[in-house]
Order: sequence, then C-alpha cells, then structure tokens
Amino acid sequence: MRLLALLFVMTTLAAGQPRPSLVITHSEAQAMHAALGSVPLLDSTYARARALLEDAFAKPMDVPRPVDAGGYTHERHKLNYTQMQTAGVLYAMTGEPRYAQFVRDMLLLYAELYPTLGLHPKANSEESGGRLFWQTLNETVWLVHVAQAYDCVYEALAPAERLRIENSVLRPMAGYFTGPHAAEHDRIHNHGTWMVTSVGMLGFALRDADLVDKALFGTKKDRKGGFVRQLDLLFSPDGYYTEGPYYTRYALMPFYLFAQAIDHNRPEMHIFAYRDSILAKALTIGVQQLTPAGRFIPYNDALKEMAITAKEMVSSLDVTYARGGHNPQLLDIAERQGVVMLSGAGLEVARDIAARKQHPFRFASVELLDGPEGKSGAVGLLRAFPANEQSLLVLKYAAQGMGHGHFDRLGFSLYEQEREVIQDYGSVRFINVEPKFGGRYLEENRTWSKQTIAHNTVTVDERSQFEGSTAAGEKSPGVRHFFAAGDAAVQVMSGRESAAYSGVQMQRTMALVQSPMFSRPVVIDVFRCVSAASHTYDLPFYYMGQLVNTSVRYDAATAMRTPLGTRDGYQHLWREASGRTDGTVQFSWLQHRRYYTVTSAADSGTEVLFVRIGANDPNFNLRNEPAVILRRAARSSVFASVIEPHGEFEPVQEISNDAQPRVQNVRVIAATEEGTVVEVTGKGAFRWRFMVANGAADPTVRHTIEAAGELFSWTGPWALQQ
Amino acid sequence: MRLLALLFVMTTLAAGQPRPSLVITHSEAQAMHAALGSVPLLDSTYARARALLEDAFAKPMDVPRPVDAGGYTHERHKLNYTQMQTAGVLYAMTGEPRYAQFVRDMLLLYAELYPTLGLHPKANSEESGGRLFWQTLNETVWLVHVAQAYDCVYEALAPAERLRIENSVLRPMAGYFTGPHAAEHDRIHNHGTWMVTSVGMLGFALRDADLVDKALFGTKKDRKGGFVRQLDLLFSPDGYYTEGPYYTRYALMPFYLFAQAIDHNRPEMHIFAYRDSILAKALTIGVQQLTPAGRFIPYNDALKEMAITAKEMVSSLDVTYARGGHNPQLLDIAERQGVVMLSGAGLEVARDIAARKQHPFRFASVELLDGPEGKSGAVGLLRAFPANEQSLLVLKYAAQGMGHGHFDRLGFSLYEQEREVIQDYGSVRFINVEPKFGGRYLEENRTWSKQTIAHNTVTVDERSQFEGSTAAGEKSPGVRHFFAAGDAAVQVMSGRESAAYSGVQMQRTMALVQSPMFSRPVVIDVFRCVSAASHTYDLPFYYMGQLVNTSVRYDAATAMRTPLGTRDGYQHLWREASGRTDGTVQFSWLQHRRYYTVTSAADSGTEVLFVRIGANDPNFNLRNEPAVILRRAARSSVFASVIEPHGEFEPVQEISNDAQPRVQNVRVIAATEEGTVVEVTGKGAFRWRFMVANGAADPTVRHTIEAAGELFSWTGPWALQQ
Repeated sequence: MRLLALLFVMTTLAAGQPRPSLVITHSEAQAMHAALGSVPLLDSTYARARALLEDAFAKPMDVPRPVDAGGYTHERHKLNYTQMQTAGVLYAMTGEPRYAQFVRDMLLLYAELYPTLGLHPKANSEESGGRLFWQTLNETVWLVHVAQAYDCVYEALAPAERLRIENSVLRPMAGYFTGPHAAEHDRIHNHGTWMVTSVGMLGFALRDADLVDKALFGTKKDRKGGFVRQLDLLFSPDGYYTEGPYYTRYALMPFYLFAQAIDHNRPEMHIFAYRDSILAKALTIGVQQLTPAGRFIPYNDALKEMAITAKEMVSSLDVTYARGGHNPQLLDIAERQGVVMLSGAGLEVARDIAARKQHPFRFASVELLDGPEGKSGAVGLLRAFPANEQSLLVLKYAAQGMGHGHFDRLGFSLYEQEREVIQDYGSVRFINVEPKFGGRYLEENRTWSKQTIAHNTVTVDERSQFEGSTAAGEKSPGVRHFFAAGDAAVQVMSGRESAAYSGVQMQRTMALVQSPMFSRPVVIDVFRCVSAASHTYDLPFYYMGQLVNTSVRYDAATAMRTPLGTRDGYQHLWREASGRTDGTVQFSWLQHRRYYTVTSAADSGTEVLFVRIGANDPNFNLRNEPAVILRRAARSSVFASVIEPHGEFEPVQEISNDAQPRVQNVRVIAATEEGTVVEVTGKGAFRWRFMVANGAADPTVRHTIEAAGELFSWTGPWALQQ
Repeated sequence: MRLLALLFVMTTLAAGQPRPSLVITHSEAQAMHAALGSVPLLDSTYARARALLEDAFAKPMDVPRPVDAGGYTHERHKLNYTQMQTAGVLYAMTGEPRYAQFVRDMLLLYAELYPTLGLHPKANSEESGGRLFWQTLNETVWLVHVAQAYDCVYEALAPAERLRIENSVLRPMAGYFTGPHAAEHDRIHNHGTWMVTSVGMLGFALRDADLVDKALFGTKKDRKGGFVRQLDLLFSPDGYYTEGPYYTRYALMPFYLFAQAIDHNRPEMHIFAYRDSILAKALTIGVQQLTPAGRFIPYNDALKEMAITAKEMVSSLDVTYARGGHNPQLLDIAERQGVVMLSGAGLEVARDIAARKQHPFRFASVELLDGPEGKSGAVGLLRAFPANEQSLLVLKYAAQGMGHGHFDRLGFSLYEQEREVIQDYGSVRFINVEPKFGGRYLEENRTWSKQTIAHNTVTVDERSQFEGSTAAGEKSPGVRHFFAAGDAAVQVMSGRESAAYSGVQMQRTMALVQSPMFSRPVVIDVFRCVSAASHTYDLPFYYMGQLVNTSVRYDAATAMRTPLGTRDGYQHLWREASGRTDGTVQFSWLQHRRYYTVTSAADSGTEVLFVRIGANDPNFNLRNEPAVILRRAARSSVFASVIEPHGEFEPVQEISNDAQPRVQNVRVIAATEEGTVVEVTGKGAFRWRFMVANGAADPTVRHTIEAAGELFSWTGPWALQQ
C-alpha cells in the first residue's frame, strides 16, 4: 500500500517555485528576517552566522588541492561548505549581495579545481575514496551543504556562471555518486543516507526530477535502495537506529534535512507522516539515548564526548519539533543546545522557547528494540531518579549494528554522578586529530575496542564473539528475554545470546533496585553460561576510579608487566595482579564523590585478574584504564554480582563516610533449567533473594526450585524477595 | 622593641567579661541574631548551622571509644566537635536552651570517656599519638572547637557540671599538651600552632591566664615557642608560609581563630597589627597561591582537590577581612566560598557582600620569598591573562618546607584551561579514606612523590636531591637569581641550586611570553647544569593528556614492561618506550581542548624515555600518569625547551585545527660562565633569541658572548630578541 501510494507522487518539479526551496523557503527566510530582534535564540544564532562570514570575508578565500585526511585541506573544505551554506541562508534573509558573491566566487574556484582531481591521495580504496575528501562520505556532506547554498544564491548568478558551476562540479559530483559509487548510494547504511541526501538536494536545487527520484528510490529507481527504503529498514518501528547512538546523531541529520526539502518540494509525499511518523520517533528515541551528562551512550564505535549539543542534533531536532507535532519536551532539549538552525523550523523553536512553551524532557527506562521489525533484540536502559541524580544501567542484547558494531553482546555499562562508573571503552579514534592517522579509526579500534574482552560481558576461551566476524554477528541478533520497568523500586531486564559462541548459551539478567536499605540504587547482575563442554569464562568490570580495597589476596606484578594474552584484545591488557579465591569476591573503588563495591559470588575455581589497558600500544593510542576480570573454568557457571554505590567522599571539606559497603556476601543458591536463585546478604541482617526464570518469560507461570533444603517459588520471569 | 612591648600586656583576664568572648563575643552574637533575614549569606549559613543541629538532635548522641584512624570513630569525634561548636554559637545567638543542653550532654559523655583512655590504639608513636584521636593534631582541633562551645554555654551549666567537664577532660587534655607534649606545643610548626591555639583558647574560656601565657609564649613562657614566636618564624615578611599552600590552608585557621580570641581578650596586644600586619599578609598571599581553578598549587605534600572553599579558608578570610583592613578584594573570594563564618567577622563579610562592596581579586605574578627574613629562596608564580583565560607557571627555588617538603628544587608546573598541563604529582594520600591506610600518608608518599624524579626538575645520577635527607634540605634553601614580571609580554624568573647535588651547579630560568606569533602564552625553559665530573641528567615533563605525536624514533616496550630503576622513585616508573635523538626533540599531546608541544634542544647523546607512573605499586596507590624524560650523560649540559600551546580541539562539533606547533627548532648557541644563548625558530621565518646571565643578576651589567660567528650582547640578567 505504502509503496503504491508513493508511486503516484513522482510529480515534476515546479521550475517556477521561488528560491530558496530546499531546507528553507523564501517565505521562511523573510519570516526569520522579520523576527530579528524579538527572538533571543534566533538573534544569537544569527549573530554567530554573521560572525562566521565576517571572519571569512576578512581572510583570503582558499580552495586548496586536497592532500590530507584530517589536516588543513580536509578542515578547509569543511569550513568552506559551512561558510557557503551559511552565506546562502544569510543572502536569503538579507539580500545582501556580498553573501551571494562569496558563494559564487568560491563555487567558481571549485569549478576550476574539481575537474582536475582524481582519486584523493589518502583514499583507502577506490570504493570508499572521494576526490575532494579522502572518503566519499565527507564529499556527500559537502554537496548537501553546497546544494543548499547554490539554491539560495541561484537567482544572483549569471547564466554562464550557473552553467560553469553545474557542469564542472555539481553534476559531475552527483554523477560520481550515482555512477561509480552507485552501490554505496543504494546501500542501506548511514553513508547511503548522506549520499542520497546530497543527490536529492542537488536534484531539487537543479529542478532535476531524475536526480531526486534516484535519491528517493535508488539509482535504478527500483526502491531497493534510496531514501524511502532506508526509512523502512534503518529504524525499528520505535525509531531505534541500529548503529547505536553515536552514529544515530550523524545518520539522522541528512534524514531530516532531506525530509524537510522533500516536504517543501513534494508535500504530497507526507514524508513526516511516513511509516507512522518514523522520523519524529527516531529523533525522540535518539534523545533517550543520552547519558545523565547529556552525551550519547558510547557503545559500538563511538567517541564519548559526543553530545546533544552536536550541530547535527540541532537541525534534526528543530525540524522534528516544527514538522513532527511540536512536542514541548523537545524545546527543553533545544534550550540545552542553546542554538537553533537558521530555518523556518529553527525560528519556530526559538519563538516557542521565548514563549516558555517547553516541558522537561522525560528521560525514562526504555527498551530500544532493534531491527526493522523490532525483533532483533534490544538495548535495555534502566534509569532511577533518587534525589536529584540519575542512575543509568545499559544492557545490550541487540543486533550487531553493522560495521561499527562491537562484539559486545550482553555487555553493560553504568552511570552515576553524571559519570561513567562502569565504562564502555568506546572507539579508538581521535576525531579529526591529524597526527593520529588523520583522525581516522586507529588500528586498535579493531584489535582492542571491538573485541569482546574490551566489554563488560563474558568472553569465552579468550576469543571474541562470532570469532570476530561482523557478518556472522549480523546474521544473528541478540535475544530479549524480558524487560520490566513498571515498578520503579525494582526494574529488571534480561537478554540472551546463544550464537556468539558455539555450544554456549548465555543469559544475563540485571536489576536496578531502589531500597531504603541503600542510599543509592544498587545493581544485581546474574550472568549464566551453560555448556556441555568445559570453557574458560572471563567477566570484566571496567570500573572507573581508584581501587581502594579488595577481599582478594593477590600477587602483584610489581616489577614486570606482561600482557594477558596474544590476540582478540587480550594482547592489550597488562596483568597487574591476580589471585584465586572462593566464597565471595569484593573490590571497591572511589570515583569522584562516592565509593562503589562489586560483591560477586565465587567458587574455589575463581581467579581474579587486575588488569590495565595499554599493552601492545606502540603509538600511545589507548587510554590506560583498569578492570577487574573474574575468570572461571567450568562447563556451566553463574556470575552473580551486586554493584553497590555507598558513602561519600568530599576532599575539600575532608569528609569521608561509609567507605565499606553494606553487602557482604553474594551466593548462587540454585541454577537449573527452571531458574537461578541468588542470595545477597549484608550488614544489619540484610538478606535478599533474587530469582530469575531460565525458560520462557511467561508472567503467569509459577516456578519452583528446591535447593539447600529450601523451596523457592515465584511467578513470572523474576522475583526479588526483600 | 616588639618583645618588650608585649611583656607589659600580660594582664589578668577580666573574670566578669560577658560570655562568649573567644571567637565571637556576646554583642556579636546579638548583632548576628538581629541581622537575620536581611543578609543573604548570613541567612544561608545560619540555616545550614541549624540543619546540622536538627540532624544531630534527630539521631542518637554517640561518644564512642576511639579505635580507628579515619574510620567511624575518628569521623564521629570530628562530627561531635563540629556540632558542639555550632551548637555553642547557635545558643549564643538564640538563647534556645536545647543547644546548650546538647553541648552539656555531650561534654559530660566526654568527661566520662576521656579519663579511661590511654594512648590511641592506632597512634604511630607516644610522641605524636593522642587519646581521642590517633594523633594529637586532631585532638588539638577538637579542643579548639570545644573551648569555643564551652565558653558559649558556660553560663547555662551548673557549677558541678563545669567542675566535672573541666576536671575530667578539658584541663587534663590541656595538661597532656603542655606536659608530655610540651615539645610539640613549643615547636615552630603547624602542629604547634594548633596546639597553642587549643591551649590558649581553653585558657581564655577558663579565664586561666597561665594557660594563655603558655600558649602565647611557650610552656616555659620564655618566648622560644608559642604563638608569638610562630608569627615571627613561620612566615616570610610577605606572609608566605614555608610549608606551601596546602598546609597554609590548614595552618592558617588556628592563627586567625586564636588571633581573634586574643583581640577580644587582650586587645592591647594589637595582634592583627603585629609584625607589620603579618596575618593579613599571610591570608592574602595564601589566596595568591591558587590555581586558575581555585585550588591550591599542590607542591610539597598536598592533595590536589584542596580549594579556596575549604572551611579553614572561610574563617581565616572572614577574620582577615574584618580585622585586617576590610580589603574589598577579599569579598570577591568570600563570594566564591559562598559561606561565611557565624561570627562578627562573618557578619561583616556577609553584610558587605550584600552591599556589593566587593572588588575582583587581583591574581598577579608574584615571587613568594621564603624564610623568616625572606632570604631562603622563593616560589615564583608567573601569570598571563590573554583573552579570558589564565596561564600560570610555577617555579620552585624555595626552602625545603619542613617535613612535608619534597625534593623538588627547580621543579615547575604549568596551568592552562583551568587545568594542569604539566603537573606536580602532589602527595600519595587519600584523605580520610579509611581503606587506604586510614586516610594517612601512604608509603609511596615517601618512595615516590617526595623523590626528585617525581618532579619536573633535573635528577642527577638517578638519585634524589640532598640524598633524600630532609635535614640536609632544610639547611640549604634554594637561591633566587632574579624575578622580572614588570613587562606582561615577557616575564622571566630564575632560580639556582648548588647544594642538592655535590659538585653540580644548577640554574633554571623560565619565561612566560605573550606574542602575536602565538595564540597563547608560550614558556621558554633553560635549565643549565654545570659540573667538573660526568653525570647523568634526567629532566621529566609530566604532561597531562594524550600523546599525539613525537619526532623521536623509539622502541616501545609493547610486550613487557619493566621499571626504570630500583630506588629514589625510579622503581615506580614503567619504561614504555625509549629512543635516542639529536638535533631537536618534539613531543605533542592533547589536553582537553588544546594541543601542547614541547620542543627541546638535543644533542647526539640525548635519550628520550617515555614512562608511566605505577610500577612497584602493589596496593594500587598511584595514579598511572605519563611523562617524557630527557636524559643526557655529560659534565655540563643545558636543557633548553619551549612549551607551546596551540590549536583547538572540540570533539562535539568535531573541530580540530593547528595540531602542529609553530616552533620547530630549539638550539643552544652558547653556554658560558657569562651567559646562555638559546635560539628558537619555527614556521613563518620565526626566530627568537633568549639570553640569560649566568653570573650576578645586575640590571646594569652588559653581557657579550661570541658564538657561531655572531656577537650576542645584552644588558641585565636576561633578554629576549624577537
């Protein structure tokens, strides 16, 4: 039905429509100009835009021959497209000729340069290489900006200038994308999104319906690729984007820009309503993937600093607000961004913030179901809000997430105090830092950060999940067991993985519990591995902070350090200390103003490894951060742990209290096909029993286990007896 | 003269003076009460004080038998004295009986407990051990607070209660201090200051002139010890306190509290005018020792977090403001503290802030001359204020600084972006963190952080200065060469050390230069070592951040790490990589939003060591942070370096520029008895010549050196040809 409906809207573009008409329209430009002086956020954004161009006018124009991937010429071409796009908008708003002249002069320089370029000297391959940039990805971003700039100043150009610019650079570039790079153009992937957007935006700017249709439906216009297909496949029904939050931010922007241009030029497509308003859902669920500090949760390839203030999120959010139902919670986020897009949508946001229409954004516990049908596992987010501070627990049992995905099935991370407490390493890359391999992904991104041992999940036999094959990982997503966030006092989520390691079934259940027994929410973690064969199971906790105490008697490698292994990431871990223990393992660390303790059930075979990242790192690319690894050789095994925040440390007033945890012991009482029973005990006659169903997650089924002379019974997938 | 004048003021205390009369007086208490509701900072402080007591009332009173040094009982006794002192003030202000009852009830419990106590079970020695606390130091702090509380509630107590409290705890404690601990009481040291203050405050509270006189003039009243002698000897004429800023904060508080009590009870001593108003000078120069982030510069034994907001600085500052001339710049600092003391002085501060009388505090370049006569070297602070951000360069050529001093003569540190860029490690201690040796100094404080190699200065032959002897270091302070901060564009300081290593003369000259050639101030560093014998000279740079580039070809210890040495701190450094080079050494790192590069002259004998702290650290007490060490075997040698901040890194907007420095080469052109000539060259035909006199620092003397076929001439101790 959906496809049929769209087939009929391939209308011819109205050649006589007033310009600009892509992301902003002529009337929007007029409205912005008229609103100047009365809408603070518009004024400050406008002032910043003018300052950018004043700076550009004050310095020599430069369109250099591209030589690097992250150095001057790379950055210069990025600056150039930003300046041109901004100048275009300013011209549309003010009609000042100097802005149009700036775009014209620069485009004429590009028209001279571009035809002389072959493959970029730093290109990784013919396949991914651009001409102006080392990868086509950046080149598509260039064209997305330039198409807008060109549309804005089109009327100010002489016909000969238009001809020269279109024939020497704009059309050849689009031809490069839809011709030699057709496979990338038609790929269901964020690179594909940027490419179709660049082609489609240029199509609108040139009134070229053929280009627009290729962008919308693929180079063969067969709907196997192109923008619409991407809307179908890249998001779950809830709007979750499979690459994860860091790439969500990057991938979203072209969706919204192009959607805005489509809406202005082919309003009959109702693109914002498409797939039950998938674009509005994607933006909102993208915002949900922020840490308490406003950064994107950094699983998969991600730079940890990336935040809601990223420029890509500004335009996406503004468009969503204006075209996606004026959700007042988005204004709260826009206010934190502190800047709007110079467009009709941005004007609406600025105006409504000035009118105090914003409501607080409701960060919630949410299960991010993955896959186009929402059936490829999920990322579970549990949040708790005691006092004025948020705890966030993240458990990943989702799909692989394409090429930037990590082998981190059933990995978790934990946030408190607006900080990482148990971290996900993120990627190994120094974005745009030229001396660091031109700002590209570094070798250690593959050898370290993608590997399973780099994550807070079980590595089996010192090998990464799926033997490190992305293709194998893509074939087999994680499996949700259950997600129960209805009761704020006890929220539980559980995921499964049985394909990552042949013959090993894994199930991890994590609970975030608020109790008067504890000053802060505590985490219960039950990780069960089942196999018919014997394996080594390694479970790390990449804690952030300074180790202050442990129950483990260890030998410290004080005078010589060697790596923990030779491959699959183990070669990057220094062994700092190790010991064997039984009964209970405890280790405590201090992070900022609070203590944290992991208390974990151990048996006599448990080895505890204290490690630090940084071995085999000849170029100093890794952060030298610590972890404690619980290692066990067994056929089947349950790692049962409690993570307890406790006490207070305040170094200026020299206050320290409750450096010792309440929890003293964690014990696995039973682990059967039916279920797992874990007992947590501690000071003050404190005792919890946590029970998880190991079969189906039926809320009505009653489970009974007899163990240690006791009968344990509960109904539904889990229970906590306090 | 000074001593004579004081001899005549030993007046008898007026038994009939209204109470309280120590840090606050009866009329001040009335004035505070009357001002409630009209002075915001007073109101918020008062509200906090009341909340503290509400909390105390709501929980059981506990005066536990002391067992630990940093755990519950330690913290509880600290809480108790804070509550009692606060309750005393609140009683004086409000007259509400419950506050007096609280102090009475608790003191009666102490009167029961104290007589049963012997030496504290965690005491290090008879000499330093207390009874309530593991060291007498904490016990004196207890008495300083309790004397005030007792004075405040005195009138509300029955005579029998007074007798019991005085005879069972207060007088015995004072007797313990002035008897068995007389040596500590009379010692010219911050422990001595706390002790005399506790004894003197109790003396005033008990109207006991004998105790007061012992506090003022020593247990023998011979003026060889006691408060007045401390005022003579612990500060330089400018008010610099020889232990350095971290202990300044701690040491200052009793000076001001006791001075306030003296002024109320023996106004004829004019204590605030004593020694040319040394107390006001000491406070003001203490504030000057703040980093741009408002923390105390952490040389010597210091915890880096300690800041101007420390409670000790609040009371010291308030008293200084009120009794030391109402310097409006201090109000600026008080406003940042956000809290005042509940006293007449605090009331004045709060009132004048409400009246907007504050002026911005003028942080300046200043030479902190050390020693009672100001002739024991100095700590030089150079500051530069381009745009709205401060650069701070610290060079230490001061006295040893007593037992908490480090072997760091001619060491430096550098701040920018409100952060450490080249760090001083500080001490190895987790204050009050019970699992870390009860919060006391850790073994690595001695084996690592005091050692010379832990600092940014030259270590000779892998041995610490003065062979690690504090006594030897005390005998021989650093020597100032010159300090010239008159020209904001080029500020230069220079210090010397010739006793730290037998037969080695060392001179370090550092300049902070603001030039249109650089976006930020750059540092020129010329460290000359002269010896008749051959030595190994190691100069580390403890840079903060991520190494991004180096000109050195190195071998990395990727698969095995070993320590750099076996003693004097070298055993705590892992060798990560090393290489040899000649010509110029460059290494760059990224810290927060900026790049930094050290460019250093090297000859063919220069070895470059990349190291990381953390070897031989079995208890995980050290921070695993990096350094680059320049190593040279020579008789005499000049390390000439430039530290250049450059470029910008902004990960959210993905901006990076100028990752490469401007400076490309540093060369030592000449180094003679007469002077040293260093050339700095770089991009854009950039060339500087920096010249330093190696003889006397006479501003009128002309120096001439012929080298490399050129004649270099300058007048005065230094010159920079740009």
